[in-house]
Amino acid sequence: MENTLFTVSNVWMMICTALVFLMHLGFSLLEIGLTRQKNTINILFKNIFIISIGLVLYALVGFNLMYPGSFILGIIPDYFFDLFGLSIPENGLTAEYASGGYTYWTGFLFQGMFAATAATIVSGAVAERIKLGAFMVFSIFYIGIVYPITGSWKWGAGWLDELGFYDFAGSTLVHSVGGWAALVAVWLLGARIGKFKKDGSIGAIPGHNIPLATAGVFILWLGWFGFNGGSVLSANPGSTSLVLVTTCIAAASGGLAAFFVSLFKHKQYDLSMFLNGVLGGLVGITAGADLMSVTDSIFIGFIAGTLIVLGVGFIDSMKLDDPVGAIAVHLICGIWGTLAVGIFGSMAGWGQFGIQLIGVLSVGVFCLVSAYTIIKILKSTVGIRVSLEEEQDGLDIHEHGMDAYPDFRLNQH
Amino acid sequence: MENTLFTVSNVWMMICTALVFLMHLGFSLLEIGLTRQKNTINILFKNIFIISIGLVLYALVGFNLMYPGSFILGIIPDYFFDLFGLSIPENGLTAEYASGGYTYWTGFLFQGMFAATAATIVSGAVAERIKLGAFMVFSIFYIGIVYPITGSWKWGAGWLDELGFYDFAGSTLVHSVGGWAALVAVWLLGARIGKFKKDGSIGAIPGHNIPLATAGVFILWLGWFGFNGGSVLSANPGSTSLVLVTTCIAAASGGLAAFFVSLFKHKQYDLSMFLNGVLGGLVGITAGADLMSVTDSIFIGFIAGTLIVLGVGFIDSMKLDDPVGAIAVHLICGIWGTLAVGIFGSMAGWGQFGIQLIGVLSVGVFCLVSAYTIIKILKSTVGIRVSLEEEQDGLDIHEHGMDAYPDFRLNQH
Amino acid sequence: MENTLFTVSNVWMMICTALVFLMHLGFSLLEIGLTRQKNTINILFKNIFIISIGLVLYALVGFNLMYPGSFILGIIPDYFFDLFGLSIPENGLTAEYASGGYTYWTGFLFQGMFAATAATIVSGAVAERIKLGAFMVFSIFYIGIVYPITGSWKWGAGWLDELGFYDFAGSTLVHSVGGWAALVAVWLLGARIGKFKKDGSIGAIPGHNIPLATAGVFILWLGWFGFNGGSVLSANPGSTSLVLVTTCIAAASGGLAAFFVSLFKHKQYDLSMFLNGVLGGLVGITAGADLMSVTDSIFIGFIAGTLIVLGVGFIDSMKLDDPVGAIAVHLICGIWGTLAVGIFGSMAGWGQFGIQLIGVLSVGVFCLVSAYTIIKILKSTVGIRVSLEEEQDGLDIHEHGMDAYPDFRLNQH
Repeated sequence: MENTLFTVSNVWMMICTALVFLMHLGFSLLEIGLTRQKNTINILFKNIFIISIGLVLYALVGFNLMYPGSFILGIIPDYFFDLFGLSIPENGLTAEYASGGYTYWTGFLFQGMFAATAATIVSGAVAERIKLGAFMVFSIFYIGIVYPITGSWKWGAGWLDELGFYDFAGSTLVHSVGGWAALVAVWLLGARIGKFKKDGSIGAIPGHNIPLATAGVFILWLGWFGFNGGSVLSANPGSTSLVLVTTCIAAASGGLAAFFVSLFKHKQYDLSMFLNGVLGGLVGITAGADLMSVTDSIFIGFIAGTLIVLGVGFIDSMKLDDPVGAIAVHLICGIWGTLAVGIFGSMAGWGQFGIQLIGVLSVGVFCLVSAYTIIKILKSTVGIRVSLEEEQDGLDIHEHGMDAYPDFRLNQH
Repeated sequence: MENTLFTVSNVWMMICTALVFLMHLGFSLLEIGLTRQKNTINILFKNIFIISIGLVLYALVGFNLMYPGSFILGIIPDYFFDLFGLSIPENGLTAEYASGGYTYWTGFLFQGMFAATAATIVSGAVAERIKLGAFMVFSIFYIGIVYPITGSWKWGAGWLDELGFYDFAGSTLVHSVGGWAALVAVWLLGARIGKFKKDGSIGAIPGHNIPLATAGVFILWLGWFGFNGGSVLSANPGSTSLVLVTTCIAAASGGLAAFFVSLFKHKQYDLSMFLNGVLGGLVGITAGADLMSVTDSIFIGFIAGTLIVLGVGFIDSMKLDDPVGAIAVHLICGIWGTLAVGIFGSMAGWGQFGIQLIGVLSVGVFCLVSAYTIIKILKSTVGIRVSLEEEQDGLDIHEHGMDAYPDFRLNQH
Repeated sequence: MENTLFTVSNVWMMICTALVFLMHLGFSLLEIGLTRQKNTINILFKNIFIISIGLVLYALVGFNLMYPGSFILGIIPDYFFDLFGLSIPENGLTAEYASGGYTYWTGFLFQGMFAATAATIVSGAVAERIKLGAFMVFSIFYIGIVYPITGSWKWGAGWLDELGFYDFAGSTLVHSVGGWAALVAVWLLGARIGKFKKDGSIGAIPGHNIPLATAGVFILWLGWFGFNGGSVLSANPGSTSLVLVTTCIAAASGGLAAFFVSLFKHKQYDLSMFLNGVLGGLVGITAGADLMSVTDSIFIGFIAGTLIVLGVGFIDSMKLDDPVGAIAVHLICGIWGTLAVGIFGSMAGWGQFGIQLIGVLSVGVFCLVSAYTIIKILKSTVGIRVSLEEEQDGLDIHEHGMDAYPDFRLNQH
């Protein structure tokens, strides 16, 4: 590995890191845009907290836990808690460290941005009713321990990796890991007041700032250039550029599919569905972005977009209240994308499909149990849901003592 | 061409692609910011639709059409419709493909982002009154066929290229192509209710969210780092860095000029003019960004900014209703920038000026005829304008069944 | 220096330039978000003006002034005003120009973006009451002359550089330079009506758009990838990636500290403090981002975040009205970061601490005197403060004749 090529790859990886960082702005805008103005400060606080605590935790614990030297019983990363855990290996700044792809520091920061993402996914689903303190404690355990452990199974060269499981940039390891926790949290929290009415109908709780939600989706799409593009782990021209093409085509196709299906179903040009369709396409392509052709990407995106429309309806029919559609986007399309590696592209085959299914299920079980344990303990002790009064008045004024838009006249609902 | 330099150039081109992608967010924010809140969802829907359908169409048709092997009668690209048209050449991932500048995939994605831009330009001009379905059909034909054909004349090594026509990054091939269609569309659509009053005066219809419009302009300026910087088609240090300098200086100069001229004319610090002046400067420098000195760029930007103030007034006086000033920015400054190649910089000369004029006129005629044909057929069949009631109530509630800002109390106008 | 490595470094520097450019959007959003809606257009106008005039001025004067061949009396850069000052040296586009790090054009543009930043810092502190014309004149002198002179002392190889003063990316040379002027301006301007009441209490003037302020902080954080990452002045993998890590960790740590301290002090989850804590951490790490370990960065950020909470309270208690907290962020944390180079990291020591102090004080004295002179002259001639009526009605309607949000119903205060 020559030194200049190492420098190029490291530049690419740093840019991708910056783009994944920006996804936290994308999630913030999407989540506040699709919820009510009275909980805006609360959501923004959660998001800036997650990226901040996430990076510090990943430095102290997560990075070492996720890339361990060995495993206990083949499952638990062999890493004992070591305060101020980052210690750079001797070759950490040389081309030898990561096949010339990046330095130790770049590797840490890129992965640290991913870790924080998993908790951010949960943030949207539990919006408008979770206690901030409880959410923060949950995030610390989920980012600090759960995410790195499942991550280690594949990306840390653990048992799923040995089995042949494939998850290029994290349809399962990032998006489903967040999605499973979102599912558990939404279930244990219960729906927002007014979402499911006594007569069985579903109350619409429209998002308060659709321009910001749309900006959030554009920014997330941009962020995915880094999320998937950086997962090549080098600047290899063929791989990186193919990955950007499959990523963008799947996003476009996902959005168009959600638009067509919802137009057919509801006879309206539904912007929220288009936006979530784009995100579904992005999550769907993530597991195999480097394996697919343009045609494959169109199909994967199209099915993801369709699943978004059906999934949002299904979640609603289960009486689960997910204000931003995070479960449909990250869990359902995360599963779809992981399985799609067995159906489309250069690894397709029944054997691979089976292995992908094992990955989906094993990560699913671990996340469900972990998330349930953490959230159930929080629920039984400090409580996870704000009071009725607080929910009605909005979390901003109670927990933060401030309004998001004090100069504007607002409708309270 | 050595492999590492190929990798560097490809990284640069991928980053530029990402920046051009982000311009779609910039256009979205600019367009909604300069129009009324009641049509916000509609504009956002158009923009996310354009980038999505644009990329898919460019994969299926546009890319092959724009870079054909040969021409029929020297004008029509010799490409027969081939579903799922992308087929990567054998050397598509090697340095041989594009003189070591980028891979086939990067080339496709970079150009695909450009293609979608041309239709987005139209979107702003027709805002607040066009039928969404009609606009979508128009976009499909304009992105899928018209843009690639005029593009092929120059960038596909066609007759304008042979003639010596110069258009570095698309003052004509992107901006004017969009601008001519905007002109035709605005004319065939007619003005918004209340814009031109019976007494001959012009009714002000102020934009509803100037912070987002301003953010849009900053994002567009950033996007131009990629739009012009990527048009070098490699990471050549001298060319790329000169292009970024001329681009930024022209943008700054354009904004300052529009500010000074409008201060002189209207005795007010006019933010909208400053913003459109920046965009005018950017469009103006685009045709020759690699040919100009810093001094040239100051002049080109200054004249562009002046043309913006005069142009917006002229369009108004023609009773053409362009809510965001797209015709002044993209058509007038697009023409100016193309002609400026014959006046300033290293290619200046009467001969070149004449060739530039031929380019402006031939592309203009082709776009006028094409846009007129498409829009006239749509007008005579499905109709292009929403009903009076829909326009008054806003397109959001009629076509999309949702509000952009449901928690805010609004003034209807 | 081989040519390909030069190309890589130049690509990295151009990307960093783009990111620093984007900070101007970040500042714009932060400033309008933390002030009232009635002054929004005015703030946006200032920000787009600053970047525009800043770039043009830096081309005409600043760049040559900041990197002079020699000094008069060892302090004043030996550069005589030369209209259209940029003249590229013969080797300006080769690897020889800047040790293979970047071209002359990239160097100019990167530094030009920095220059404009210094004035933007002032813009937030003087918001909601300064006369636009006076601010513009101040900016021209401060960007055009003051900033390049202090800059030349260190980065132009002047006396502070010879002394051993260290300021990696500008805790002092950019942030404090802006911060000192903000201090003087705020003092000479006086507080906004209603800020300090007759009974000694402090009137809350809440910011009108917290989502945009938060987006501004995310964008500024992103911009710091370029601000600090680009200050390596090459793409050296070890240095650049370390700098991104220390930068992000200090930002995270700063935010968390401000959150904890304000929670302890005010018993509330204070989003504004979190956001300013992030910025404080970023400013704090800027002087020594390349010298620190992860642990150092956590400490530097944590102290910066703590200083933000204490600093904002202190500024208030001094009856200085700084609407966005610019003095705490840029001046106090700028000083802290500069001194921290003598306390933490690989250059720590009492000798270095003393030199850092000399740098802080000498730049401080020069900026205080310069800013006082410029602003005092403006105050005594054209005046610097808008009329009482204008301040109460808002600057938007008086100076710009337009509203930021005409479709929304607003509370006037």
